[in-house]
Amino acid sequence: SRSIDLAVIPGDGIGQEVVTQGLKVLNAVLPQDVKLETKEYDLGAQRWHRTGETLPDAELEALKGHDAILLGAIGDPSVPSGVLERGLLLKLRFAFDHFINLRPSKLFPNTATPLAGRPEIDFVVVREGTEGPYTGNGGSLRTGTEHEIATEVSVNTAHGVERVVRDAFARAAARPRKKLTLVHKNNVLVYAGHLWKNTFDKVAAEFPEVTTDYLHVDAATIFFVTQPERFDVIVTDNLFGDILTDLAAAVTGGIGLAASGNINPTGAFPSMFEPVHGTAPDIAGQGKADPTATILSVALLLRHLGYEAEAVRIEEAVSADLAERDGKHARTTDEIGDALAVRVAS
Amino acid sequence: SRSIDLAVIPGDGIGQEVVTQGLKVLNAVLPQDVKLETKEYDLGAQRWHRTGETLPDAELEALKGHDAILLGAIGDPSVPSGVLERGLLLKLRFAFDHFINLRPSKLFPNTATPLAGRPEIDFVVVREGTEGPYTGNGGSLRTGTEHEIATEVSVNTAHGVERVVRDAFARAAARPRKKLTLVHKNNVLVYAGHLWKNTFDKVAAEFPEVTTDYLHVDAATIFFVTQPERFDVIVTDNLFGDILTDLAAAVTGGIGLAASGNINPTGAFPSMFEPVHGTAPDIAGQGKADPTATILSVALLLRHLGYEAEAVRIEEAVSADLAERDGKHARTTDEIGDALAVRVAS
Ligand SMILES: CC(C)[C@H](C(=O)O)[C@@H](O)C(=O)O
Ligand SMILES: CC(C)[C@H](C(=O)O)[C@@H](O)C(=O)O
Repeated sequence: SRSIDLAVIPGDGIGQEVVTQGLKVLNAVLPQDVKLETKEYDLGAQRWHRTGETLPDAELEALKGHDAILLGAIGDPSVPSGVLERGLLLKLRFAFDHFINLRPSKLFPNTATPLAGRPEIDFVVVREGTEGPYTGNGGSLRTGTEHEIATEVSVNTAHGVERVVRDAFARAAARPRKKLTLVHKNNVLVYAGHLWKNTFDKVAAEFPEVTTDYLHVDAATIFFVTQPERFDVIVTDNLFGDILTDLAAAVTGGIGLAASGNINPTGAFPSMFEPVHGTAPDIAGQGKADPTATILSVALLLRHLGYEAEAVRIEEAVSADLAERDGKHARTTDEIGDALAVRVAS
Repeated sequence: SRSIDLAVIPGDGIGQEVVTQGLKVLNAVLPQDVKLETKEYDLGAQRWHRTGETLPDAELEALKGHDAILLGAIGDPSVPSGVLERGLLLKLRFAFDHFINLRPSKLFPNTATPLAGRPEIDFVVVREGTEGPYTGNGGSLRTGTEHEIATEVSVNTAHGVERVVRDAFARAAARPRKKLTLVHKNNVLVYAGHLWKNTFDKVAAEFPEVTTDYLHVDAATIFFVTQPERFDVIVTDNLFGDILTDLAAAVTGGIGLAASGNINPTGAFPSMFEPVHGTAPDIAGQGKADPTATILSVALLLRHLGYEAEAVRIEEAVSADLAERDGKHARTTDEIGDALAVRVAS
C-alpha cells in the first residue's frame, strides 16, 4: 500500500493557518489507500526567540527522512533580517540541493489583476535555487566605518546552470506552446551571463522542438506587464527569479495565489513546497489569509510525488472555486479551505 | 554671456533620430543670450565595426572638457553582448563617476498605462551608478568546460552608498510628500544589505522631515503594479535600479517617455543624459521612434546646468502635448519634436 511521509513546517505569522488548510485539502484529495503521515517541526521566529536556534543539525537530519516538506512561511519583524532567511529557509534549499525553484503563474478566471485588458497569463518560472547571489559568499571589511566595503558574490557553475536549464527545456517541451525564454543580464554580468547563454544554446540543440528566446531582466519586467501572454516557460537565475516571480504573482491576481516548489529532481533529498508569500504578521491569527497559494503548492507536491491526477484535481478545484465565488463577501481562511476540500473530494 | 558646451553621442539605431529632436527642443527653449555649442562624437556599433574601438582614451579625454553629454542609445545585435555596454556606456558612467542615476517616473495625462484604474504615479528613482554588480569584478575559471565557474561580485562601499543615499534624502526633502523608500534585498544579500540599511538609517537622522520606508526588491515590484502611488523617492543599488526603472517606465506609459540623468553632482566631470530606452533597431530610420524620453532627458540636463525655468518649460510642454494629442493618428519622430519645439518657444 502507498504512503506519504510528510514533514510540515508551519513557521510564522499566517504560516500555521495556511498549512492547516493545505493539509485539509491534501487529506481530502488522497485516495483511501494512501496512508498520509505528517510530522510537524517547530522552526521559525518563536523557536529562535526561545532557544536561539534556527535549524539544528538533528532536525536537518530528521527532515531528510521524509518524502517531502510542506512549509507555510518563515520570518518575523522581531528577528533581525537575514537570520531566519539564511539560517532556516535558504539553509534547507541549499542543504537539500533544491536546484529547481518552480513557480507557475496563471491568471485564473474571475480574479483581479492590476493589468488592464486582462491578458491571458499562463507561464512557469524555473528559478535556479542553489547558486547565484544566494550562496552567502561575500563579506565586509572595516565594517561600520567610513571605509567599509561590502561584497556579494554571485556564484554560477556549469554543473548548476546546466541542470536547471535542461530541466526547463524538458518542461517547455512537455507544454503545448513549447517555448523557453532565458532571462539574464548578460550585457553587464558578462561572466555569469556568458555561462548561462552558452549553456542555454548548447542544451537548446537537444530540444529542437522548443522555441527559444532571450531577454535581459530589465526588459523582461516590461513584458510582464505589457505582454505577459508571450511567456510559456522562463528559466533564470536565483535572484532574477526571486524578483520576477513576485512581479508575476502581482499581475496574476496577487501573492495569495502563487505556489512554489523547491525541487530536487534526483530524489536524493526531500523537495519542499511553499507559498511564495511571506508571513503577513499584520493579518496573522485573524482568519484573513488566503490559503490558496499553499493549497496549490500541495498540488505541486503531489505532482512531484507522482500523484498527477490528484494534483490536477486540486488545480481544477481552485479554478472552479475562483470562477464561482461571490466576490461580494470576503471568505475566511477556513471557508476557502473547506470549499476546496469539498470540491476535491467529490 | 552664458554658454553651454555640449557633447552629443547619438549612438546606434534610433539614437540619431531622437537626439536630433532633443537638440531641436534645446535650441528652441534656450534664451537668446545663451550660446549653445555642440560637438558630435561618433561612438557606438558602427565605429566598433569599422575600427574595433569602443571609447579611445583621446575621446574620453575630450569628453571631459564639455559641460554635459547628451546620449541617444548604444548597442546593436551585430555586436557581441557586453562589448558596447561595458566598453562605452558603463565606461563613461564609471570614468565620470556618475554616482546618481536619476530616473523620474510620471504618468502623464492621456497616456496609456497597462495598469487598470490609472493610479497616480509620480516618483523618482535615485539609482546608484558606480558600484554594485556593475563594477565588472568577477571572472570565470575553466571557461567553456563542464567545470566552469563564473562569478560576479557586487562591490559596495560606505563612500559610494552614503553619497547616493544623502542625495536621495535631499531630493525627498525638496518634494512635497517628503518620502524616501530604500529598496534592497537585505534578508539575503546581508553584507551589502546591512551597509545600505545602516547608512540609510544614519543619514535619516539628518533629515527628520523625511518619512522613510524599506522594501525588499521583490516586494517593491509588487507595489509598482498594485500601488505605485505609494512611492515618492526611491533609492536603490545599481542593478535593482536598472530593473525597477524599466518596470516603472512600463507602468507609466512606456519606455518612450522615460528620461534619465547620469549625474556627478560634484561637477568634477560632465554629467550625461539619455533616454532609458535602447536602440530599437527594428524601427530605426523609419521616423517611428518617440523622441519624448530624450527631450525629457534634455530637461534633466538643463536643470543640472542651472536652467530650472527652461527645464520646467520642457516638462510642461510634454505634459500639454500629451494631454492634447489626438491619439488616432501616430505622429512621426519629427512631428513630435516640432510640436514640442513650438510649445517651449512660445
Ligand atoms: C524570504 C526570502 C529569502 C525568499 C527568497 O528570496 O528566495 C522569498 O523572497 C522567496 O521568493 O521565496
Ligand atoms: C544598456 C545597459 C548597460 C543599461 C544598464 O543596465 O544600466 C541600460 O539597461 C540602462 O538601464 O541604462
